Amino acid sequence: MPISGFPEWLPAQRMIEQRVIDRIRSTFELYGFAPLETRSVEPLDTLLSKGETSKEVYLLHRLQGEADASNEDQLGLHFDLTVPFARFVVENAGKLQFPFRRYQIQKVWRGERPQEGRYREFLQADIDVVNRESLPFHYDTEMPLVIGDALGGLPIPAARILVNNRKVCEGFYRGLGLTDTDQVLRTVDKLDKIGPEKVAALLVETAGATDAQAAACLELAAISAEDGSFVDAVRKLGVSDPLLDEGLAELLQVVETAREHAPGLVVADLKIARGLDYYTGTVYETQLRGYERFGSICSGGRYDNLASSGKERFPGVGISIGVSRMLGLLFGRQALEVSRSVPTCVLVALPHEDQRVACDRIAGALRRRGISTEVAPTAAKFGKQIQYADRRGIPYVWFPGDPDTVKDIRSGEQVDADASVWVPPVADLHPAISGAEPR
Amino acid sequence: MPISGFPEWLPAQRMIEQRVIDRIRSTFELYGFAPLETRSVEPLDTLLSKGETSKEVYLLHRLQGEADASNEDQLGLHFDLTVPFARFVVENAGKLQFPFRRYQIQKVWRGERPQEGRYREFLQADIDVVNRESLPFHYDTEMPLVIGDALGGLPIPAARILVNNRKVCEGFYRGLGLTDTDQVLRTVDKLDKIGPEKVAALLVETAGATDAQAAACLELAAISAEDGSFVDAVRKLGVSDPLLDEGLAELLQVVETAREHAPGLVVADLKIARGLDYYTGTVYETQLRGYERFGSICSGGRYDNLASSGKERFPGVGISIGVSRMLGLLFGRQALEVSRSVPTCVLVALPHEDQRVACDRIAGALRRRGISTEVAPTAAKFGKQIQYADRRGIPYVWFPGDPDTVKDIRSGEQVDADASVWVPPVADLHPAISGAEPR
Repeated sequence: MPISGFPEWLPAQRMIEQRVIDRIRSTFELYGFAPLETRSVEPLDTLLSKGETSKEVYLLHRLQGEADASNEDQLGLHFDLTVPFARFVVENAGKLQFPFRRYQIQKVWRGERPQEGRYREFLQADIDVVNRESLPFHYDTEMPLVIGDALGGLPIPAARILVNNRKVCEGFYRGLGLTDTDQVLRTVDKLDKIGPEKVAALLVETAGATDAQAAACLELAAISAEDGSFVDAVRKLGVSDPLLDEGLAELLQVVETAREHAPGLVVADLKIARGLDYYTGTVYETQLRGYERFGSICSGGRYDNLASSGKERFPGVGISIGVSRMLGLLFGRQALEVSRSVPTCVLVALPHEDQRVACDRIAGALRRRGISTEVAPTAAKFGKQIQYADRRGIPYVWFPGDPDTVKDIRSGEQVDADASVWVPPVADLHPAISGAEPR
Repeated sequence: MPISGFPEWLPAQRMIEQRVIDRIRSTFELYGFAPLETRSVEPLDTLLSKGETSKEVYLLHRLQGEADASNEDQLGLHFDLTVPFARFVVENAGKLQFPFRRYQIQKVWRGERPQEGRYREFLQADIDVVNRESLPFHYDTEMPLVIGDALGGLPIPAARILVNNRKVCEGFYRGLGLTDTDQVLRTVDKLDKIGPEKVAALLVETAGATDAQAAACLELAAISAEDGSFVDAVRKLGVSDPLLDEGLAELLQVVETAREHAPGLVVADLKIARGLDYYTGTVYETQLRGYERFGSICSGGRYDNLASSGKERFPGVGISIGVSRMLGLLFGRQALEVSRSVPTCVLVALPHEDQRVACDRIAGALRRRGISTEVAPTAAKFGKQIQYADRRGIPYVWFPGDPDTVKDIRSGEQVDADASVWVPPVADLHPAISGAEPR
């Protein structure tokens, strides 16, 4: 019986997921990010130290754990990979080289109400760079390039990374004369949910804004551009503040670096805020074309204060691909296909049970050269053995004989073959994934 | 603060673990096993349906989950991958092709007392074949071959797979005139822990055995052979029973198939029983040479009755590599090494911050051809940049110039190079793992 919020893919979908993870991982490694896995559990006080998510945590209790209940009560499943990473860095700082670049691809758990593309158990793929004391800004410009390379190599709709900078917003609000900039930011963050009129009213009610100040905040949030033109658009609003200048210069650097690397990948979008409160500069969200209304499938940002230990600070910048979320949306529309439901490229037919040893030898010869092979389960009629291959999408059936022959069961073509030298076309060696017209 | 039983590897160790997982996965796929992941949680009654492990289960509670507590109370983290797999097969039988061959590489959780190589959170790598109604025996002979290929390709001590068959034991005990064969089996299973004298006494006390019957059970358990000679050794004990004959024939088939494939890999060892009660025929345990006293790192067996749905039965056979357990033991003795602590092969030196765009282009050209590359974090003195590479084991530093040059910092050799064509020696492309003298 399925459990709401805990998705399970069939093997064909799992093959697609693995191919997606392989692509993400190899891209992360090409950029020199080192792999890390942290334990699935954290002490509850570590999990709650960032507020906001307290109601989503799953706590662990041992079924018969009275003896050490006071201790066990305190463990919960992690709800993201950033909080455990920050804890790991502080704990192991003496054994790590800084700046420390790591990737982490793991399940996380949240007790949220499930909905399309929102799960209680899901896979995240994160990269972060952290350093001691200060971290050069150019790492903020690198994050979108890595994500663009990782997702760009997959048969999925094009990704668009929306970037903003908290300093732009805070500096602008401050320059306008607003003092509770956090409250303004939280309110503007509701724009997509409640619309501009209600945001304006809330700004007046809860953040002490005049109608004119609220209108200016909305004008800022409406600015969006694929190039540096957003700077002039902000300037035209006539607000000046040193933090605003700093934020605009940083955001411009992100946009221009991305334009050189992959035109169209990055958009400066000044309404992006990100709910969580630990971001201090750059923030990222990512939409897949055609799936904009489902929200971001890859988010992150700069955090100057997430990790600290005594008087040591570890500022960082990171971004996280919501792998389950992205695949759940694409699977929901049958927008991804795989050419077969098993890794198997060749089925060795079994003429008679007493030839199993010979057939195993053929399979062994093919496997030694990297060709995924099965031997038929029983010496059924060949028609039934071919059906075994056909139902799984296995493209080739091998017939032992003198000489052996191999048949492409899609075309019906059958040729003489030697298991010590035969190779399939490269495209048939592994299951191929491809995009399909969304339904 | 580390949490007892929840291990965390440093990035260099995680690279070794990933390489081990990659090898296991690619071997599983070469044999045509399809990938599967099940959710981490199961309803408590599913987890408890196999008895024995009840006290080890971690239950989940939402921190603020009063509303649906009665439902949420029932979810626990899975403690192995066999029980969830059996549930998945029954639930999705209509969508799967049988015989169904799947592999599953996932974390599992047990609330056990932690000790060396025994964790509360650990990674398992399982293969199983299940079918409707009946499953041909030759799948029992395939399991050790897959494990032999997977582990044989790794720089770890040689694996020895110990095989037995429940039918041999049960048939023998029955032929001896003992009726509570389960109790005999459970008692003999304690041989390694409490020794033969105490086992003999317990057999008399709890299983109704005479001294002579107890002695015969111990004689059977003492039989071990790398070839078919175990059959004669059993026959010499003078017990006959049809189930014993069936078991001996099956066990002989496993031993002989393995001898043809990989001599020395498999040993018939008639004391192997496996604690869990769902095995009905073949059972497997695996020792690493030099680590015998730590017990099995890869176990499994045939289960004819694990999964069933109404009147449908799904017999299966499977085996599970304890990846964390195996690596924990090897890491504990520094018996595995990796050539660097990052995936990075090349560090592009940065002569001046205003040359970052040019250095990023060099890095991009190298990455496009599969070479993991980083650009130096700052335009520090070259000595400091080389130190950045050296501390991480990055073998090459690239100096932009006219022409560019690349330096092997291990040998000091520096040559002209063009980022669009240069390639490192194959051995340097990825971090290399190797075995080390255990300490």
